[in-house]
Amino acid sequence: MAKIAIMGLGVVGGGTADLLAENREKIRAACGEYLDLKYGLDVRDMPESPYRDLIVHDIAPIANDPEVSIVAETIGGVKHAYDYTVRLLGAGKSVVTSNKQLVSEHGAELLALAKENGCRYLFEASTGGGIPVIGPLSRDLSQNEITEISGILNGTTNYILTRKRDGGVGFETALAEAQQKGYAERDPSADVEGADACRKISILSATAFGKLIPPDKIHTEGITAIRQSDVSAAASMGAAVKLLGRAIKRGGECFVLVSPFFVPGKSPLAHADGVYNAISVTGNYVGDVMFYGRGAGAKATASAVVADLITAKTDASPVPTWEPAGEDFPTEFDSFVCPRYLAFSGIERNAVRVVFGDVTFLSGAEGEVAFITPAGTERECADGIARLSAGGGQLLSMIRVYESGERPEA
Amino acid sequence: MAKIAIMGLGVVGGGTADLLAENREKIRAACGEYLDLKYGLDVRDMPESPYRDLIVHDIAPIANDPEVSIVAETIGGVKHAYDYTVRLLGAGKSVVTSNKQLVSEHGAELLALAKENGCRYLFEASTGGGIPVIGPLSRDLSQNEITEISGILNGTTNYILTRKRDGGVGFETALAEAQQKGYAERDPSADVEGADACRKISILSATAFGKLIPPDKIHTEGITAIRQSDVSAAASMGAAVKLLGRAIKRGGECFVLVSPFFVPGKSPLAHADGVYNAISVTGNYVGDVMFYGRGAGAKATASAVVADLITAKTDASPVPTWEPAGEDFPTEFDSFVCPRYLAFSGIERNAVRVVFGDVTFLSGAEGEVAFITPAGTERECADGIARLSAGGGQLLSMIRVYESGERPEA
Repeated sequence: MAKIAIMGLGVVGGGTADLLAENREKIRAACGEYLDLKYGLDVRDMPESPYRDLIVHDIAPIANDPEVSIVAETIGGVKHAYDYTVRLLGAGKSVVTSNKQLVSEHGAELLALAKENGCRYLFEASTGGGIPVIGPLSRDLSQNEITEISGILNGTTNYILTRKRDGGVGFETALAEAQQKGYAERDPSADVEGADACRKISILSATAFGKLIPPDKIHTEGITAIRQSDVSAAASMGAAVKLLGRAIKRGGECFVLVSPFFVPGKSPLAHADGVYNAISVTGNYVGDVMFYGRGAGAKATASAVVADLITAKTDASPVPTWEPAGEDFPTEFDSFVCPRYLAFSGIERNAVRVVFGDVTFLSGAEGEVAFITPAGTERECADGIARLSAGGGQLLSMIRVYESGERPEA
Repeated sequence: MAKIAIMGLGVVGGGTADLLAENREKIRAACGEYLDLKYGLDVRDMPESPYRDLIVHDIAPIANDPEVSIVAETIGGVKHAYDYTVRLLGAGKSVVTSNKQLVSEHGAELLALAKENGCRYLFEASTGGGIPVIGPLSRDLSQNEITEISGILNGTTNYILTRKRDGGVGFETALAEAQQKGYAERDPSADVEGADACRKISILSATAFGKLIPPDKIHTEGITAIRQSDVSAAASMGAAVKLLGRAIKRGGECFVLVSPFFVPGKSPLAHADGVYNAISVTGNYVGDVMFYGRGAGAKATASAVVADLITAKTDASPVPTWEPAGEDFPTEFDSFVCPRYLAFSGIERNAVRVVFGDVTFLSGAEGEVAFITPAGTERECADGIARLSAGGGQLLSMIRVYESGERPEA
């Protein structure tokens, strides 16, 4: 029997404790032994909690207990979570976490510390909620050169965009709905401005490429500027607007970004709706695979935390390490190539053709000229926008168009 | 450095050898050591093969070489593959396989033999080509009670159904296309009659529920009876016709079946098109997750074979075992409950309402009455069909309607 501690008995930590109890026999079959909760670290006393007798308010009893070999960190944030994690890994105890901020900011250091001390630092629950994706990338797909990861990584924004498309519901109303359903935080800025997806693509990118790009070095756009008419323009060409986190290796270049994209209906990412997340991975042997499921919620996230507790017991593969990102990694974002959707007022189609060449016009809202550009770099696009603006045009929207390497051939 | 043997240097075995060479450093990072090919067992001499110097025609050198600890079996069929696998597992060597026939017919015995001899029998490549699904079920989701697995498990039939829907292409033409593209075998009967999907759902069901149901005990229907008008009727209600393998636990009941289904557009399974496969898994904590990718092909399948070679080196979890299915497992198929699409000629809508109650009529082909029944058992449906037939009706089609436990809420 192995003894476990959970730090932070909030929504995810509480769900983890529940799962350990409810699916106890399943876990024993997977691990070869029971995983028993011995401590719950929390600032609160929680007299109503079924775990009240296990509560401690200090890290010392956990760090000093030789019976405890694995600890789940579901505190969130950096301050306490970082200190506790360093202390536990330093004591040779494996730590599993749902804390995307901590992993995206300090993952390289914490993995190195785990390796040094012969234990593990695992973070399946930090990305994609319950969806197995860090595990599959680290194990089932580890023999592939990964060339791309593109994912819908934030449920709140995907809910808002889905409601915009299917119900014509405005941003504020859809956000209020998402908050009412418990999907969105009271302060939704990290969701709608892309910071949450940014942390997650930073973690996925590091898992695939072995180099951690800090979130503040990742080009990040949110969904607050997306208009109803943009969503309709996408639908008119059989596409859906999705906020994607993308990490792409092409030749010697590597791009990591978060931005809204027009995703063509041929891509399975276009059909991951509502609060669901979906992560597409391309490898040099496996081709395209996609992982889909609930990206948040107590039970789904607890599933990922417990998956890591089991992994900490049963995985004998080498602990990976992440290098810090250098000067050339990622590549300067100005060189990123894709087609783009643009909407302008105050210009004629002819001017567009002169500047952008062989575009495809869409039926935009009244008084607008909306079109898809040929593939070009960020720099080329900015130049084109400047030229049309100098000619009296007013840019209303710019949304990139997703092109994946592979498509179903039928 | 670990020494590997591959039995059967055909399409998948050759791809496996290529992957071992091309992604050698990736594999070392994942395993902690190189995996080097020492033998390729084949009946042919293969003088043109890059692996010609490694070829042996007999199992003895592999079975007797203490340096070889893991062997890939990509022979297919049962006869030689079974004998060789028994001999190798008996000698304490792990075996990984792409052989769905062998796993679905003898998996329980071979897993027990592996456990007895302290080695592993792994079969990621037997189901879903390169898609990680056996690994995620065995590890990442092992802490969940699985309540349902529903998947598009055969690329040939999915290609044919996609072409029928998008191009109005007939069965024979679409099949010929699939053969020309190398998706379908020259003898496509195992694909189109459902036997291939049946083996795969047998393996998935055993992995999730721990009991192996032999393929001949699984209710299996193929796609040869599906008419263009059935596909159009599905499209008219926003659904797609998909051949699904399903394994479902509901209360004390368990159903395992292969049959075409109307899959509503809200389900991500409806959008897995062409030769792609998709497998949806529902667990009591994780909710719905889906795995999507290429279900066949040399490179994708090789990815899964090599994933298992790495797993054999690095996974320290207990070797699972499968019990044989008993009298009550699966439940009698007559009790399976779902709504159904029916198309009749020679009857009026009124007669349908009298027999099936609150149905939804679809605009069927001329002279047909097409409708969706309320959810009912197989037995109730057969009774209803018998009553309408007695009244002069002629049954043209019956296709079940897929209802999953969970749906995106937006």
